[in-house]
Amino acid sequence: MELKAEKIEVVGNCDATAFPFKYKERHPLEYLRQYPHLRCRTNALGSILRVRSEATAAIHSFFKDNGFVHIHTPIITSNDCEGAGELFQVEPSSKIKMPEENFFNVPAFLTVSGQLHLEVMSGAFTQVFTFGPTFRAENSQSRRHLAEFYMVEAEISFVESLQDLMQVMEGLFKTATMMVLSNCPEDVELCHKFIAPGQKERLEHMLKNNFLIISYTEAVEILKQSSQNFTFTPEWGVDLHTEHEKYLVKHCGNIPVFVINYPLALKPFYMRDNEDGPQHTVAAVDLLVPGVGELFGGSLREERYHFLEQRLARSGLTETYQWYLDLRRFGSVPHGGFGMGFERYLQCILGIDNIKDVIPFPRFTHSCIL
Amino acid sequence: MELKAEKIEVVGNCDATAFPFKYKERHPLEYLRQYPHLRCRTNALGSILRVRSEATAAIHSFFKDNGFVHIHTPIITSNDCEGAGELFQVEPSSKIKMPEENFFNVPAFLTVSGQLHLEVMSGAFTQVFTFGPTFRAENSQSRRHLAEFYMVEAEISFVESLQDLMQVMEGLFKTATMMVLSNCPEDVELCHKFIAPGQKERLEHMLKNNFLIISYTEAVEILKQSSQNFTFTPEWGVDLHTEHEKYLVKHCGNIPVFVINYPLALKPFYMRDNEDGPQHTVAAVDLLVPGVGELFGGSLREERYHFLEQRLARSGLTETYQWYLDLRRFGSVPHGGFGMGFERYLQCILGIDNIKDVIPFPRFTHSCIL
Repeated sequence: MELKAEKIEVVGNCDATAFPFKYKERHPLEYLRQYPHLRCRTNALGSILRVRSEATAAIHSFFKDNGFVHIHTPIITSNDCEGAGELFQVEPSSKIKMPEENFFNVPAFLTVSGQLHLEVMSGAFTQVFTFGPTFRAENSQSRRHLAEFYMVEAEISFVESLQDLMQVMEGLFKTATMMVLSNCPEDVELCHKFIAPGQKERLEHMLKNNFLIISYTEAVEILKQSSQNFTFTPEWGVDLHTEHEKYLVKHCGNIPVFVINYPLALKPFYMRDNEDGPQHTVAAVDLLVPGVGELFGGSLREERYHFLEQRLARSGLTETYQWYLDLRRFGSVPHGGFGMGFERYLQCILGIDNIKDVIPFPRFTHSCIL
Repeated sequence: MELKAEKIEVVGNCDATAFPFKYKERHPLEYLRQYPHLRCRTNALGSILRVRSEATAAIHSFFKDNGFVHIHTPIITSNDCEGAGELFQVEPSSKIKMPEENFFNVPAFLTVSGQLHLEVMSGAFTQVFTFGPTFRAENSQSRRHLAEFYMVEAEISFVESLQDLMQVMEGLFKTATMMVLSNCPEDVELCHKFIAPGQKERLEHMLKNNFLIISYTEAVEILKQSSQNFTFTPEWGVDLHTEHEKYLVKHCGNIPVFVINYPLALKPFYMRDNEDGPQHTVAAVDLLVPGVGELFGGSLREERYHFLEQRLARSGLTETYQWYLDLRRFGSVPHGGFGMGFERYLQCILGIDNIKDVIPFPRFTHSCIL
């Protein structure tokens, strides 16, 4: 675009020699990452962050249109969602003199998931969701992990099958993505054209196909029959590794695939017992997508008091989760839910390789700039 | 409403003798607070939390409709927004063995405001907003304070007067409230009828009148001329106390009132110098509302490099805020912004006396249940 100016007024000068980004030069995303206070001024980050804003709005609107109540689940919590990850602990900074040992009287952590709090709310509202920051104190430099990231989580009452849950998950992915594509086509195109060539076609392929469904048991069989040499030998009862997830997605023709019914022994106490055997499973589901791997995780929850009581007792958690048992004691309904990693979602639709480039201010081991 | 049932199926039984809420009894909100995992099942909390959900959607939609880009400002941060409040510090829980002293290499805190990060973004997008949790480690049991609460913050480029800012603040309050009233009238009515009689009329009074504007200097004069005996004697150069705020709102006929142009010495380094004197002020604004007191705080930001440089140097902060100076060094524009306490907003429209009743899981000194 050319402008013919009749008058030019400099509102705020910029010393181009000191400015770290050069005029007309396309700097690698990794270089831009050194300047978190300036990189949003580039075309690339500008587009990515506008897409992030549109995707946020699209997700809120998907849930609102479908009658979900939005819940702000707490950030500081005294429960740890049963080992979903390594925790950050929170205490008043040393400047403050508190007579007590803990500000909150109990050890307090940053949330790793809003699920248990959403389950509280699903006893009052039929459908609830939360969309907020979650935290993992993992010493990881991976291109798919952050210490602070955003999760979209939903919980639905009166859901009795994984099918119903998967329908909402696929609906969320496709509806939100279609909204983003129609609300900021130029920003998406910039990413697809200059950052991730070929991503436009890969995304269209995901959107036009029905997502696939295989059981964990089938997945292990597929992996066993493959000619690929895996670092971790696939075996029933063992977690799927990234290399396995990648293989499965490729095996499924790069269409997102739900893997369902995982071994009970691998999963936390709250997932619903399928009462099968001898390969005992729970009603859990993960969605694997091209380029990213696990994007969603979900399950039916164990709504039956006595099943849950026994699972908690076996893990020695009965006392800690008395309040959670209460939810089943005072009017319980079948329910289930899921969580989606928001940054991984953005990576998946835009084709951005490193998760640090889809969040305004990335936090990870050794880095908390600004 | 009466239902004529042909068949009754009990999905999940409830032991009514053990259930802490009695059938047909209206329990005080304070009593309900003891059961954060069950209170959402009462009519009162059900209505309040549905209103919270609608208000969240209304605020997002106000900003989206007005062209603002939504930004997730970071929760964990290495800056402290220049003493906006007492901080919580974040560290990996003791379970993790890290060779380094700090996970992030620097001391890391929970955010007290997203403002400075929004200012980064206002250098790339003309209008930005954030709506997320903020934290204060204050040892307070007040009915207006929480350790974890939500703030709506906006930053607008090319704003050159407080008038323009106040117009957005008043627009946000009135538009969001009208949307809430039209989207969940029954829930609002329940609160107005059973929890806060008279609040309906008080709210209508706020909505139909133009908000008032007085200067800090005028406010101090009004307080000095009042016949009321204040605990803290009003005086130019001293902060307004809650008792003063209450008096001013009453004096203004219970219409929300903007107080503008505060003493420079009372305010942080980033507020724009009015270059007046001898009573030297900055372009700051607070909105005081009936029942709650301070609901919004905002200011024009010091966009002039040399003014900011001197203010920082005087506070010995030049090194810490070099990145913030950079924002003025590489293309600066006049800008300003504001923050609104979301729970106080809900208190204000619903007439809820205690802030702990408008958030799903309140966190405050000595309390972090679930």
